[in-house]
Amino acid sequence: MTVRLTFNPYEITIEVPEGENLLRAASDAGIHINASCGGEGVCGKCKILLESGEVDTTRSGFLSDEAWNLGYRQACQCRLLSDVVIRVPPESLLDRRTLTRRRSGIALRPSPLDLNALKASGYYHPAFQKRFVSLSPPTLHDNVCDLSRLEQGLARQHALGTVTIDYFLLRKLAQVMREGNYQVTASLDYSRRRYRFPHMLNVEPGDTTQRHFALAVDIGTTTVWVQLVDLARGEILDHAADYNGQISYGDDVITRILFSQTDQGLQKLQRSAAASINQIMHRLLKRHHLPVEEISHFTLAANTTMTHLFYGLEPKYIRLAPYTPAACSIPLTRARDLGLDLPPHVFIYCVSSVSSYVGGDIVAGVLASGLFKDHRLTLYIDIGTNGEIVIGNEDWLACAACSAGPAFEGGGIRFGMRATSGAIEDASVNPDTYEPMIITIDMVKPKGICGSGLINLLAALMEANLIGPNGRFRDDLNTPRIRMGENGREYVLATAPDTQSGQDITLSESDVDNLMRAKAAMFAGYVTLLQNVGYTLQDLEQVILAGAFGNFINIENAITIGLLPDLPRERFQFVGNGSLQGATLLALSRELLAEERRVASMMTNFELSETPGFMNHYTAALFLPHTQMDLFPTVKERVQGRK
Amino acid sequence: MTVRLTFNPYEITIEVPEGENLLRAASDAGIHINASCGGEGVCGKCKILLESGEVDTTRSGFLSDEAWNLGYRQACQCRLLSDVVIRVPPESLLDRRTLTRRRSGIALRPSPLDLNALKASGYYHPAFQKRFVSLSPPTLHDNVCDLSRLEQGLARQHALGTVTIDYFLLRKLAQVMREGNYQVTASLDYSRRRYRFPHMLNVEPGDTTQRHFALAVDIGTTTVWVQLVDLARGEILDHAADYNGQISYGDDVITRILFSQTDQGLQKLQRSAAASINQIMHRLLKRHHLPVEEISHFTLAANTTMTHLFYGLEPKYIRLAPYTPAACSIPLTRARDLGLDLPPHVFIYCVSSVSSYVGGDIVAGVLASGLFKDHRLTLYIDIGTNGEIVIGNEDWLACAACSAGPAFEGGGIRFGMRATSGAIEDASVNPDTYEPMIITIDMVKPKGICGSGLINLLAALMEANLIGPNGRFRDDLNTPRIRMGENGREYVLATAPDTQSGQDITLSESDVDNLMRAKAAMFAGYVTLLQNVGYTLQDLEQVILAGAFGNFINIENAITIGLLPDLPRERFQFVGNGSLQGATLLALSRELLAEERRVASMMTNFELSETPGFMNHYTAALFLPHTQMDLFPTVKERVQGRK
Repeated sequence: MTVRLTFNPYEITIEVPEGENLLRAASDAGIHINASCGGEGVCGKCKILLESGEVDTTRSGFLSDEAWNLGYRQACQCRLLSDVVIRVPPESLLDRRTLTRRRSGIALRPSPLDLNALKASGYYHPAFQKRFVSLSPPTLHDNVCDLSRLEQGLARQHALGTVTIDYFLLRKLAQVMREGNYQVTASLDYSRRRYRFPHMLNVEPGDTTQRHFALAVDIGTTTVWVQLVDLARGEILDHAADYNGQISYGDDVITRILFSQTDQGLQKLQRSAAASINQIMHRLLKRHHLPVEEISHFTLAANTTMTHLFYGLEPKYIRLAPYTPAACSIPLTRARDLGLDLPPHVFIYCVSSVSSYVGGDIVAGVLASGLFKDHRLTLYIDIGTNGEIVIGNEDWLACAACSAGPAFEGGGIRFGMRATSGAIEDASVNPDTYEPMIITIDMVKPKGICGSGLINLLAALMEANLIGPNGRFRDDLNTPRIRMGENGREYVLATAPDTQSGQDITLSESDVDNLMRAKAAMFAGYVTLLQNVGYTLQDLEQVILAGAFGNFINIENAITIGLLPDLPRERFQFVGNGSLQGATLLALSRELLAEERRVASMMTNFELSETPGFMNHYTAALFLPHTQMDLFPTVKERVQGRK
Repeated sequence: MTVRLTFNPYEITIEVPEGENLLRAASDAGIHINASCGGEGVCGKCKILLESGEVDTTRSGFLSDEAWNLGYRQACQCRLLSDVVIRVPPESLLDRRTLTRRRSGIALRPSPLDLNALKASGYYHPAFQKRFVSLSPPTLHDNVCDLSRLEQGLARQHALGTVTIDYFLLRKLAQVMREGNYQVTASLDYSRRRYRFPHMLNVEPGDTTQRHFALAVDIGTTTVWVQLVDLARGEILDHAADYNGQISYGDDVITRILFSQTDQGLQKLQRSAAASINQIMHRLLKRHHLPVEEISHFTLAANTTMTHLFYGLEPKYIRLAPYTPAACSIPLTRARDLGLDLPPHVFIYCVSSVSSYVGGDIVAGVLASGLFKDHRLTLYIDIGTNGEIVIGNEDWLACAACSAGPAFEGGGIRFGMRATSGAIEDASVNPDTYEPMIITIDMVKPKGICGSGLINLLAALMEANLIGPNGRFRDDLNTPRIRMGENGREYVLATAPDTQSGQDITLSESDVDNLMRAKAAMFAGYVTLLQNVGYTLQDLEQVILAGAFGNFINIENAITIGLLPDLPRERFQFVGNGSLQGATLLALSRELLAEERRVASMMTNFELSETPGFMNHYTAALFLPHTQMDLFPTVKERVQGRK
């Protein structure tokens, strides 16, 4: 159920889900309403006038009897129950010209290779298949070994000539065949490209062809995601995530590589990643009452460092020039050899990496997004410390990692933080009063600013003309919101009484510098890559944003600050967690599994530091949005035209 | 150096190695000299007269000054230092007609597929090969992963296109490449029949192509043998053996299978076998100053039960009708997954079995003996509790196990024992005085009788006409050597003062019955098998005796009692421990490794209890040598003609 929400005096109407929070809805619509406490309701600034319609709300001390009776409400405390009309009061009001189109209406689009598409296209053949066989019991005249009996059954009933056998299956074969009264189900792996024959990994008593599950895992530097897949039905049953336990040894890949060089360091990191997967997996299995024995297949995608750490491979040379990983393709590995609580028939299928900083997570995303099968010239971006970019189409792929630094993950920013409860994720600034509207995750008092919040805030400061193209705050304004701090001028986003820590939350020019460097590295990365393959930004027919972070980026704001190219908005799409999606699709499609290594080897890696033009492009991009404003025509028109 | 030894008054001369013991030499020549203490020198009965030549001896209290000066010596105390002539004194003398040709002069013949033959025939390509590669170090313009660099080097320098990779190799790859300054040696396995490509298992810094070793192992029910093979030079360096540690859980396969069904029983047996291999292996490696890392290859042969117990497979149904093993072919298994102290690059290559009672030890023997490439109709026999027989040639092979029972291993025989120190291994009986000549292992006081001793003794009793074709002792003789015992009549082989235990050592009619049943089972086995494939005994062009026991069997005596067929003696040959030989050859020849499973599947198994004719043949063979004396013409002529 959606309801209509109209903002007066702008006469702007949007549709939102029933029950939506009014402050969030305003933010999504690009309507500014002063709000300093992130949505917790304790600053009392986000008052609006309810003109018609019904909201669920509570009354706080900030509203006098008179105001309440007139229809004033705190926007952050209202949930919409019907079509509603509100009026933004004068103190929050801003010039209509400065209204921004906020969300671009770009929904998360499933991959062109999603489940339904896979099934429809005949591309859907899980690498693991179960075969039920009905055997006759042995007699003195037919007493071949249990294994031969099973192989003969597979040959006769499923036209399976030779199969190869996993040793561990033999340990239980005699018992399983008798327990099943010679009615058994064999699990066969058709994915082993370098084997001549299907590989038999498991055997179960009775007909278990309908009980057949896979786990798809994405080991992120911060978060581990596990998806539970029903192979018999071709459905994603559930997923769960948690922090990567390695976090206690370091926040980013570099500190973890350094830690791996300490005594037992690599082993600790390896065990820690395995423990995280085990914990999430057990949670998922418990939720679905699945015994671990019913897991047949395990696919994995991760960046190159995470892959090395999980497999216990030496990661040292990833960090040192000339940046060589030990291995980009990892052969099948028995899950329990890596400390996973899985039965011996489960092997790990890991998506290949391309280079030290373009990992299996990106290859998985390229697979999941269908980019490698798309004729359109596409830019695939995963924004993070090492923003990875891929450019190409079905015929060729080029890729690179941009050392963007941790700014978009909150690193190097005084009040930067991860996207957890209390992080300011949305912000706008009233260009007349310089008052902010901030919304935090969970709508509690703010603690800091997360990556998407930083992008939104920086764009808002530009839109409000508080900050110049060089990243310096204006010094000609008489407002307590801009002041000199320890690191140059700073904008006060929330004052002490409204914050969790009881200290002001600010964004300084030093923070802005860091953000500019990060976005310049990304921008210079894809411009350089395009240039080196003979294209320009305008040639891009499609831009795919990947990564958990990608989902929360406001495209419009990201273009405003010069992080994303200023292209027609319909060319953008989100792919979500491409790494996890890719791993899941691999679990479901043996055809895709067979293409995985080919796709990775298709991806020509560029070391940007060695690539002509990169430094120039980087320097040129150290402006907001860019030194060459013509590269950002819509921003030029809107932001700069306004001055 | 050999010396000539002449026995008077028989005027028989033989050649023996210098230093040979005189009593043993006499026994080998078929000359009877009374001897009751096994050769320890404490019965004083084996006196002979030294007519000429030089011996190394000591004088005991049994020889008076006069006797010593006349030239009397104790045969068991003499070692031959020159050509020697002796005279057998009257008390040991027997009728020349009763002299038997003892040793048939059949030496242990190496396999037609022995090392030199392998090399000469071009059949010698170890499955494991090392390849040295010289790589250029990575630069920023060429920073592919270490694995790709190595693969490219193998492709360019050794024309090796695709190789598959073992995961564990990756764990050390980065370090090894740098330690070797990008000069490394890769170990490749060419044996994996079901892989498309060679499989890379190990990588070492520098050029290690000349350091390349294999272990070949035979797990016998009683003894574990390990052979150390130098793959670089194609040489057997050494071997060592020890008891199978499982012995503490039971002497034979059946008691071990029963033990495996107790709590943790299978696990204990598995660990115990692994521990035995580890112990012998470490001893061998230490002796040759070899680090365990230089072992590349591991081949194994064992009977079906030992294979199941070592691999931890359920052995229960081997024992129960219809006698189905869990698996006859075991896939490659990482050695350390089975508890062997070997690095992760070592996999175990196990020779396939045929059925529950025709195991990989027999298949290995068929490979080692070259039977599967021989056009001659051949009988291959491994005598033991389950005497295994194979009949066939290069075109077809039939096999069966005969439940001979443990008599030939000393089981079910009152004074039966294993072939260890103090076991009577050779015996003859003076047909006039009924006095025995016994020789023990290590020539110490007798403790009991081992398998070969039992065969020799039974033949001697027949030759001396002390026992009839029905296995009963004559009751018409007035001699203390034959008396009534608890189990019918018995022959007294050694009296209490001459034995280790201080009690008489005897062979009773009950013991003889057990021996007859054992030899009848073997004989009926190969006669039945021959009949079922349309042949008779006379068609056999070759008889190969295998097994450690086989080496000690006196062919002539084994024919005399009806255990072996009465064929021209030149058709017999020994192959020694065929199981160990086969395992060793597999380590050295990938061609043979590739044929191993084919040969096993060529071998058609007969369950004798279900095979027409077996029971009749068995019953007919419960005589000495057989109810149909015409089947044993030379025995008929010699033994029976004498009566």
